[in-house]
Amino acid sequence: MFATPESAESAFYMAFEARNLDAMMAVWASHESIVCIHPLVAPLNGRVAVAAGWRSIFEAAGQFRTQVELVHEIRDADQVIRVVREYLVIGQETTPRPPILATNIYRKDADGWHIVLHHASPLQVGGSSPSDRTTPVLH
Amino acid sequence: MFATPESAESAFYMAFEARNLDAMMAVWASHESIVCIHPLVAPLNGRVAVAAGWRSIFEAAGQFRTQVELVHEIRDADQVIRVVREYLVIGQETTPRPPILATNIYRKDADGWHIVLHHASPLQVGGSSPSDRTTPVLH
Repeated sequence: MFATPESAESAFYMAFEARNLDAMMAVWASHESIVCIHPLVAPLNGRVAVAAGWRSIFEAAGQFRTQVELVHEIRDADQVIRVVREYLVIGQETTPRPPILATNIYRKDADGWHIVLHHASPLQVGGSSPSDRTTPVLH
Repeated sequence: MFATPESAESAFYMAFEARNLDAMMAVWASHESIVCIHPLVAPLNGRVAVAAGWRSIFEAAGQFRTQVELVHEIRDADQVIRVVREYLVIGQETTPRPPILATNIYRKDADGWHIVLHHASPLQVGGSSPSDRTTPVLH
């Protein structure tokens, strides 16, 4: 039971780090309209596909840590949209990989807050830091 | 005035194709919490930054056409989240570029439906079609 979107988000990234599928799926809403978009691949819709996606990531991944930084938020009474930068530190490496940008949408239901959408995508950083880059490229 | 999220979305992609900044900004909600994420670059927050981003795209782009395909939808009374594939056909080319995946969030307000969030990111297609790829990579 997550009392705030922030506690749902913490649980999401803790489950990700722990590669714990049950903990991860406990953060997702129980309805079938959930959608999870991992970097560069097609969307996964519904709990079965979302769980299969995380299972495949958790099986493939070694140990890593995550740092998450809030970039932007649209906050309403029963929904919070959070755009975050995810930094992954893999294994014994000391510096994080180039960041991933994620849009996370949390909804409040009878059982507290759950995630309903996760859209993660790479940030192409090159020589400059991501926050320095404001010139978008053509879609 | 857009009476449905679908008409707001049509106007969004028509403004994109027409490289018409006024038409594009008419589709965006008038509040400052809007956020626009173009592929691979940092988020743009608020109307001034969102408009600057589109201006820079429109100035750089030649002629192109868009094809948009709905992938997934989360539909509520006053909000619709649409995950779409965007196919761009540039200039005189006959086949579309590799698709872009976008999460578009529309909200209903006193003036009808407007977009409040656009998160676009590349789909890495390689040899297979995007819909064939369901194995996500580690973030």
